[in-house]
Amino acid sequence: MTDTTNTPLLDRVRSPADLRELSESDLPQLAEELRRDLVDAVSRTGGHLGAGLGVVELTVALHYVFDTPSDRVIWDVGHQAYPHKILTGRREAMRTVRQEGGLSGFAKRKESEYDPFGAGHSSTSISAGLGMAVARDLSGGRNNVVAVIGDGAMSAGMAYEAMNNAGALDARLIVILNDNDMSIAPPTGAMSAYLARLVSGKAYRSLRHHAKAITEKLPDFMREGARRTEEFTRGFFTGGTMFEELGFYYVGPIDGHDLDHLLPVLKNVRDAKEGPILVHVVTKKGKGYAPAEASADKYHGVSKFDVVTGAQAKAKANAPSYTKVFAQSLIQEARDDEKIVAINAAMPNGTGLDLFGEVFPARTFDVGIAEQHAVTFAAGLASEGYKPFCAIYSTFLQRAYDQIVHDVAIQELPVRFAIDRAGFVGADGPTHAGSFDTGFLSALPGMVVMAASDEAELVHMVRTAAGYDEGPISFRYPRGNGVGVDMPARGQPLEIGKGRIVKEGSKVAILSFGSRLSDAVLAAEELDTFGLSTTVADARFAKPLDVDLLRRLSQNHEVLILLEEGASGGFAAHALEHLARNGLLDHGLKVRPLTMPDRFVDHAAPEAMIAQVGLDKAGIVDAVFRALGDGARRVLNA
Amino acid sequence: MTDTTNTPLLDRVRSPADLRELSESDLPQLAEELRRDLVDAVSRTGGHLGAGLGVVELTVALHYVFDTPSDRVIWDVGHQAYPHKILTGRREAMRTVRQEGGLSGFAKRKESEYDPFGAGHSSTSISAGLGMAVARDLSGGRNNVVAVIGDGAMSAGMAYEAMNNAGALDARLIVILNDNDMSIAPPTGAMSAYLARLVSGKAYRSLRHHAKAITEKLPDFMREGARRTEEFTRGFFTGGTMFEELGFYYVGPIDGHDLDHLLPVLKNVRDAKEGPILVHVVTKKGKGYAPAEASADKYHGVSKFDVVTGAQAKAKANAPSYTKVFAQSLIQEARDDEKIVAINAAMPNGTGLDLFGEVFPARTFDVGIAEQHAVTFAAGLASEGYKPFCAIYSTFLQRAYDQIVHDVAIQELPVRFAIDRAGFVGADGPTHAGSFDTGFLSALPGMVVMAASDEAELVHMVRTAAGYDEGPISFRYPRGNGVGVDMPARGQPLEIGKGRIVKEGSKVAILSFGSRLSDAVLAAEELDTFGLSTTVADARFAKPLDVDLLRRLSQNHEVLILLEEGASGGFAAHALEHLARNGLLDHGLKVRPLTMPDRFVDHAAPEAMIAQVGLDKAGIVDAVFRALGDGARRVLNA
Repeated sequence: MTDTTNTPLLDRVRSPADLRELSESDLPQLAEELRRDLVDAVSRTGGHLGAGLGVVELTVALHYVFDTPSDRVIWDVGHQAYPHKILTGRREAMRTVRQEGGLSGFAKRKESEYDPFGAGHSSTSISAGLGMAVARDLSGGRNNVVAVIGDGAMSAGMAYEAMNNAGALDARLIVILNDNDMSIAPPTGAMSAYLARLVSGKAYRSLRHHAKAITEKLPDFMREGARRTEEFTRGFFTGGTMFEELGFYYVGPIDGHDLDHLLPVLKNVRDAKEGPILVHVVTKKGKGYAPAEASADKYHGVSKFDVVTGAQAKAKANAPSYTKVFAQSLIQEARDDEKIVAINAAMPNGTGLDLFGEVFPARTFDVGIAEQHAVTFAAGLASEGYKPFCAIYSTFLQRAYDQIVHDVAIQELPVRFAIDRAGFVGADGPTHAGSFDTGFLSALPGMVVMAASDEAELVHMVRTAAGYDEGPISFRYPRGNGVGVDMPARGQPLEIGKGRIVKEGSKVAILSFGSRLSDAVLAAEELDTFGLSTTVADARFAKPLDVDLLRRLSQNHEVLILLEEGASGGFAAHALEHLARNGLLDHGLKVRPLTMPDRFVDHAAPEAMIAQVGLDKAGIVDAVFRALGDGARRVLNA
Repeated sequence: MTDTTNTPLLDRVRSPADLRELSESDLPQLAEELRRDLVDAVSRTGGHLGAGLGVVELTVALHYVFDTPSDRVIWDVGHQAYPHKILTGRREAMRTVRQEGGLSGFAKRKESEYDPFGAGHSSTSISAGLGMAVARDLSGGRNNVVAVIGDGAMSAGMAYEAMNNAGALDARLIVILNDNDMSIAPPTGAMSAYLARLVSGKAYRSLRHHAKAITEKLPDFMREGARRTEEFTRGFFTGGTMFEELGFYYVGPIDGHDLDHLLPVLKNVRDAKEGPILVHVVTKKGKGYAPAEASADKYHGVSKFDVVTGAQAKAKANAPSYTKVFAQSLIQEARDDEKIVAINAAMPNGTGLDLFGEVFPARTFDVGIAEQHAVTFAAGLASEGYKPFCAIYSTFLQRAYDQIVHDVAIQELPVRFAIDRAGFVGADGPTHAGSFDTGFLSALPGMVVMAASDEAELVHMVRTAAGYDEGPISFRYPRGNGVGVDMPARGQPLEIGKGRIVKEGSKVAILSFGSRLSDAVLAAEELDTFGLSTTVADARFAKPLDVDLLRRLSQNHEVLILLEEGASGGFAAHALEHLARNGLLDHGLKVRPLTMPDRFVDHAAPEAMIAQVGLDKAGIVDAVFRALGDGARRVLNA
């Protein structure tokens, strides 16, 4: 497994065109070399491994059979696109995957012509592929469009919407259902159970045998009806029915690690003349690398690791992760309040709700990749007096915006939104950044919007949300570990709409919402040394705003910095609207919003991203001096 | 049909408990009286009629069989809930439906204990119902939960997400699929075709007959296998397969206008002990009222009308509707540019794309109630060089927020968003208000965000969007008719990020984004008469902002009003952030955002809503005087 110097076939493949020069009998060896190369690459950088290992043969087969890039191959999510990147001219660059300046961990249009559609979030590939197929037909083109989507991604509504539309349009589109019975966690939902029945289905095969035997023994006068019966039952027994009812021709299930199965099937579907086709391919996540196959998550996402042992490098943490603090706090609250229930969308581990589920299995719900349903399901629970905590990453909560507006906020239902991964997320890059939640939530009447400035604050906010029944409430917290503050034995309910002064000063005020507070304190200490006496306050709430605090800070300081790790239109914007509406800017306050910049920020280490966009200590200090103008700068330089 | 004085049975039904006192044999007459009462009520107010007419018998049967309100009946969307309102103590109040201070046109929790979950948008009922069913099971309750959902609503992903989850949870939940082969327009999509096959399915019945005949003639040794075969084929032939594969027990199709069919089936499913059940009920939209049955949209939404003739009162319009202006402009552009295609989500008529589709049928796509898919499908088209115009109401665009962020904005794909019904929408109330689009779009890097201040501007914006290929672009426009300006022969491309001065002044500046411009001009004229020389400008763009215009207005005036028909966090917020970031507030400008208030505004006439929230001429004038303080007020009163 470790020898990556001996890859004679892979060395010849600089592009898929080279791959297509090989003979079919070479492909198993190429797949083996590709698998070794993948393990080697990810062992150096960390990243997504299990998904790529599962599609090594499928990737080889797709590029062998299809004429990429003219034929479009769309990788849903993109976790599994690493082998694809290696085969499409990015082999060396894979040694930089997810590093600053290096390759993205997902498919990305700007990175390669072989990536016709980028991803990061799941379940988008059929919609995009259908758009490409329709474009081809309108232009009179002949190229193929292939969307590769996992079974977990099939629980998302948009995949269904796309299939429903594809079936009706009857466009020539190939969907490869990569069924590994895994996404990040084992998938849940009726579709997943259905797929499992298709794959295992001994009963179906036996019935099929019976049906055939019956047909053969029939008297002539019944044969026609029976033939049709057998035809229908065959469709049913091989399990195509559900997809076929949606207008797809169903092929499968086939072994996704056997090139002798994959190649002829893919050639056939390539040469089919019309209509959407679904190829059901069964793979194993982590396939071919023993440590991955043996692990529960199949090495979904890994740190750098030792190729021989599979041992992953672990960063030492001085503080618990926010995710874990959230989970433990919620468990603590739920012990006292049996109405607390917890909901996640296919992220039990990422949200910490796996821990909650160990203690309260009957009160924990993983609804699958289905954020829209998750939120309205929570609203239904809230309408019956339960206290649902809906734990969804900031970036994925975008999928449920209408449900938050329509089913939760308008009805004033007390759904609690626990928003993990708020702010920059490092290696996952712009598709996963938690940038917009403060803005899109603060715009909603009646919504309470909090952000935790450290892990102790998160504990208080969980308690606050547990006790707040008047309407919806949310709290955001960043990816990664806390800042290392002392932890309370239990959270204390916060007064709604009240911030706190962290440090008193007189000339400059920094009002921070959420994660940037510790840098604000450091900045204030530096400003103090320049004679710029600086107040630091933790807003805690973007909605309702602490209007007394805003009044005091705006009236008693020359400069007011509004600081947040979020996009324009968020806390700073809402605070500015309040200040303007109430005449609190009329006297000429030097107010400055410090937010994420107006661009999508590429992946890098989180601290590097923060520094790059000026939300660190240096950036805050600089903003203050720029606000004060040249005079202050001279003081600084003196 | 017109005699509503003779309703002896309905007169006795003040609540569903009264209904349950009647004998089954009385119910057809009650249904007839209810239908007449419904027609009478809507003829006086206008509103949604066809959907209610279609579910008269179903409504009677549900309240007869189920113990409402303890049993929960959730009406998806709520268009069809008028008969339910009449039977649940709101008969007289129905004469105020959709009028200011009157009943909502949808189900609404605050209105009645018989409305356990409000709606307005479609496809939420199964998720909400599942939440209620789980809550009941956690509490050890025994009540029933019934979600009534239309076939059109089944094209939405969230309905599938909910069914997928319900099937896996195996909770006791009843879904009534109200299949009238209509939502607002005839539904599209493979699911719709599937349902039609279930209902018509002569072929299936004939095959079923064959299968039975076969079984009877078999030798003994084959009988067991064949029995099971027949069992499977039966499930298939009666069409339950697809829902059954998702874990539902399927019953139907049954005639939804025949109480002799409805009552026993509903009693049976009520008394079933476990698991989710889907009852497939076939109804006719507009049933029992000849003018409705005869019309293409089955009187989906009507104005006041004459009960005998069905003739609807038509308001005289002095200007074309924005919807029509959009459609005609897009047709004009599409004649010159074959890459222009148009996409809508089950709203061909509402968006005007029915007109586009008449001219360019092959370039028009109605994807069903599937906004998520609509946007990513458009992104797929854009990735292949097409110019997709995605026409979606502001309120429904919330359903596709993640797709706008992840599939369009991050990839800088030139999808054009035509945002109809932006701002207040009148009688449809808060669920349909277009409040948040400017905020949630302006937060996105690279997005161009426009708003039309009149119908001529809309023509220019369609042209601008058609010619803009650098990335995503959007333009919002209100419900209803234009303001009556002269129309250009063809739109002119606007300079991106440039507003326009409408009227020059010196003391006060009003910078308006979108629909409030005409009131801004009236306000300015009034302010001028008080000696307050007022500039009026049309921002045109919320993103990119016209930074030169902002600088000029902020530096040369004492007061700057930022005006928009949208929620906090929108144009005004982004303009304030820009002004603050660039020190343009430091000199003490009296800047005032005038936006929608921080509450959901109940339905009323659009002008009444505008006045109520202070976005009309009087509100603007008042805001200026408040900004200028008591001195100015004295001038005003002098």
